[in-house]
Amino acid sequence: MAGSWGRPLVVCLCMALCCPWGGLSMPDPKHRESLIQMEVSMQTGGQMVLNEKEKQLNSRLVQMKQKVVTRANFPPAMHFFKARDLITESPIFKLLQKVPKGAALHVHDFSMTAVEWLVKNATYRPHLYMCCTDTRSIRFIFCSQIPEPLPHCSAWVLVEKLRAMTINVTELDDSIMKNLTLFTDLDPDVVYPTQDVVWGRFEEAFRALWGLVTFAPVFRDYYYQGLGEFHTDNVMYLELRALLPEIYELDGSTHSMTWTLKTYQEQTRQFTADHPDFFGVRIIFTIQRGVNSTTMAQVVAEAMKLKKDFPDFMAGFDLVGREDQGRPLWYFRNELSLPSDRGLQLPFFFHAGETNLEGSDVDQNLLDALLFNTSRIGHGFALLRHPVAKELSRKRGVALEICPVSNQVLKLVDDLRNHPGAVLMAENHPLVISSDDPAMFGASGLSYDFYQAFVGFGGLRSDLGTLKELAINSIRYSSLPAQQQEKALAFWQKKWDKFIFENTQSVQG
Amino acid sequence: MAGSWGRPLVVCLCMALCCPWGGLSMPDPKHRESLIQMEVSMQTGGQMVLNEKEKQLNSRLVQMKQKVVTRANFPPAMHFFKARDLITESPIFKLLQKVPKGAALHVHDFSMTAVEWLVKNATYRPHLYMCCTDTRSIRFIFCSQIPEPLPHCSAWVLVEKLRAMTINVTELDDSIMKNLTLFTDLDPDVVYPTQDVVWGRFEEAFRALWGLVTFAPVFRDYYYQGLGEFHTDNVMYLELRALLPEIYELDGSTHSMTWTLKTYQEQTRQFTADHPDFFGVRIIFTIQRGVNSTTMAQVVAEAMKLKKDFPDFMAGFDLVGREDQGRPLWYFRNELSLPSDRGLQLPFFFHAGETNLEGSDVDQNLLDALLFNTSRIGHGFALLRHPVAKELSRKRGVALEICPVSNQVLKLVDDLRNHPGAVLMAENHPLVISSDDPAMFGASGLSYDFYQAFVGFGGLRSDLGTLKELAINSIRYSSLPAQQQEKALAFWQKKWDKFIFENTQSVQG
Repeated sequence: MAGSWGRPLVVCLCMALCCPWGGLSMPDPKHRESLIQMEVSMQTGGQMVLNEKEKQLNSRLVQMKQKVVTRANFPPAMHFFKARDLITESPIFKLLQKVPKGAALHVHDFSMTAVEWLVKNATYRPHLYMCCTDTRSIRFIFCSQIPEPLPHCSAWVLVEKLRAMTINVTELDDSIMKNLTLFTDLDPDVVYPTQDVVWGRFEEAFRALWGLVTFAPVFRDYYYQGLGEFHTDNVMYLELRALLPEIYELDGSTHSMTWTLKTYQEQTRQFTADHPDFFGVRIIFTIQRGVNSTTMAQVVAEAMKLKKDFPDFMAGFDLVGREDQGRPLWYFRNELSLPSDRGLQLPFFFHAGETNLEGSDVDQNLLDALLFNTSRIGHGFALLRHPVAKELSRKRGVALEICPVSNQVLKLVDDLRNHPGAVLMAENHPLVISSDDPAMFGASGLSYDFYQAFVGFGGLRSDLGTLKELAINSIRYSSLPAQQQEKALAFWQKKWDKFIFENTQSVQG
Repeated sequence: MAGSWGRPLVVCLCMALCCPWGGLSMPDPKHRESLIQMEVSMQTGGQMVLNEKEKQLNSRLVQMKQKVVTRANFPPAMHFFKARDLITESPIFKLLQKVPKGAALHVHDFSMTAVEWLVKNATYRPHLYMCCTDTRSIRFIFCSQIPEPLPHCSAWVLVEKLRAMTINVTELDDSIMKNLTLFTDLDPDVVYPTQDVVWGRFEEAFRALWGLVTFAPVFRDYYYQGLGEFHTDNVMYLELRALLPEIYELDGSTHSMTWTLKTYQEQTRQFTADHPDFFGVRIIFTIQRGVNSTTMAQVVAEAMKLKKDFPDFMAGFDLVGREDQGRPLWYFRNELSLPSDRGLQLPFFFHAGETNLEGSDVDQNLLDALLFNTSRIGHGFALLRHPVAKELSRKRGVALEICPVSNQVLKLVDDLRNHPGAVLMAENHPLVISSDDPAMFGASGLSYDFYQAFVGFGGLRSDLGTLKELAINSIRYSSLPAQQQEKALAFWQKKWDKFIFENTQSVQG
């Protein structure tokens, strides 16, 4: 749990403030250097002690970064869609992929797996029908016979048949793919000029892939495949925000929420059996924040039941969807008090502060999340503008799940050097880096977000110690109970040592 | 002087941190409300007590803001060049123009006056020659005869003659104007794609207007006109950063630095005699940060002499030019120590942290400015990433001169809600709002920057109290000695009371 590991001591500012130099002559270079070092030591990872091998790798890393920072096209300052290839090909990124990054604590169920897989695998399965909506999106359904027509959608076409009739199948696949992700080769600022537009397209993409990923056989494989992608990216543990929707079979029959959660559990067991160097997954059950109070009360009751039935696998509860459009947390204060009213445990992992509407009702979500004892804060983009909430989050060790690529694509910030994460990392605020909806953004795993945090937030100052603390944070601030955290940390340490060994060997060799 | 007025007490967070609600039931709405109010009270102006009339005006102001915040085109989120007309026509802006804003503490000499005035007035004077550079810019010189040719420039043409030969004089004037400002009707992100490009054009524009504004008769009138513009915008006092360059006469003879400073003083006296409701001006002598140590030593010596000769009129010393390209303050540590070495007083007003290159040499300017006991910090854009420097600036009451429009146009930040000023205002960090180079940005006076700070930084939370504290800050953090500050505050208070009276009367009437 957050806080159980204890935070490194923040260096007292007394030294700076109690030793006035009086301005009577040139500032003492030693005093100056000590203030600079004090600042360096205050950042995330600033107090990590590196061993010889780590120092060796670190100098390589710092050299690599120096080259990026001085180039004209600085990737964190560019839109991710334009910067992605630059990042992918960079030596820093290639090294970051190998870094054992610990856990991904803020990832959503239906955007964890590459869209390419969905198109190349899921849409090639038999019995899949597709229709085109009035809004120029698409819908899918697997069905043993022609399904009932959908309102505002063309007639259903069997995808298998469509492909047989199509001359350029690659083009068809590409056009399907474009509907399932925000990523585009076009100028993203032209395609998505405003937050409203980009959120509209974001939600539409989820509706487009819904019929694919909620089909039981795809559902299982999609999840397994997603775990594989994170595992390949050297992520060992996930806390997945899952909607637990009705999963359907070819005959139209559907499964319960319990079945869905159980399926996640079984698939996780299978994955860890197949990959013993993967630590595991826990699920954060989520509901759209647009629902009414009655529905919220039912869902919270359901969540309490699931937490009771799956005490180890289910981590807790959260609300999802665009904060600016949804209901604020305080609107659901009665429903969110149900667990504590009934003396039941339901940890919260609230999204809060994913907004730049300062002073609005929704802008109070940060404070309310903390008042409802949230275990972590999803995003917390607005935290710097809330000094009381910020202090509470720091003092109580409530970590922010910072998702740089997501915040940029969803138009909260352009140049990631201006992302609040840069400030929070400079102060070693409790935080972890995560990827939110990697497939929607044309990313995968955690490495792209690590790149943005490491190069964009940290500038020239962050180093291997930063990466190490970010990885350790991801376990320290996970929902795992203390004993499990110890186990996970030992698990991670082994990976880390191996990583250091391999990447210092290769330089020498 | 900064700090002499004492900062309002920052509300202790103990209340929030020492009264845990334990999460055992719904958070107490009263406790929640008190935390929200605590946050509101922590912002700039959060502890201003408004009288009945002020409250009345405040509700009008808050209503106006509510309308702006919910619109699709939110001006502080847009590039200023695209937003300017929206802002100009808005009721909030019209009110902000009338607000007695106190002082403008960060304005540069040759961008204080509208470019329209330069073109319509200065370039219509006789004996003005113009040539076109290889870099497609222009140069001017006043001369009694045809001047010597300039390298990399076309032959000199008498502007009077050029106009006589031109069919469309308006077009000619417009094309001259475009060379003297960054403002453009074209898409600014296309015209100025990078910091390098925009800074290049910025410096080129100063070179273009140089021959106009350093001609003695224009020099005098330009300054007087500039004071008029600030005065019209309800600014009562300025601290002007001035290069004090060689000012020339028609016969090519030039004046000394002392003459230039004296001329500023005389023109200021004339202006205050003509406008008794104007408080005055002080000059901050500035030098380009690109010079070498020898030149810097000479200039610092010159500055000390000027400070001795004009103790009341000259406020102090600063370095100007693009920080990222210039030499860091620490490079000049010996030269900047000269005044204290010699026991002489030369207050510093250093630009620092106008960069997003975190961790570079230049990025240490913030700390160094503080170590050299700077009286204020110009910009301080990078302050949030420097927790030690931030704490020093707060504890010692060293105010930041925040120039939102400038920082956006010069591409440090796009959406001004992500400007560090938003965070610093949420914490009531010592700061003032200023306009840097209004004419270069198509702005004028202070009101555009006040708009960005009030609407963009403050969101829905800032109110009339914020404006009041910003105005008071501009006097409290000025270089004026204590007694003069008292006088200036009394002077301002009268204006403020009149403003409140007039703008509550008009609603009733």
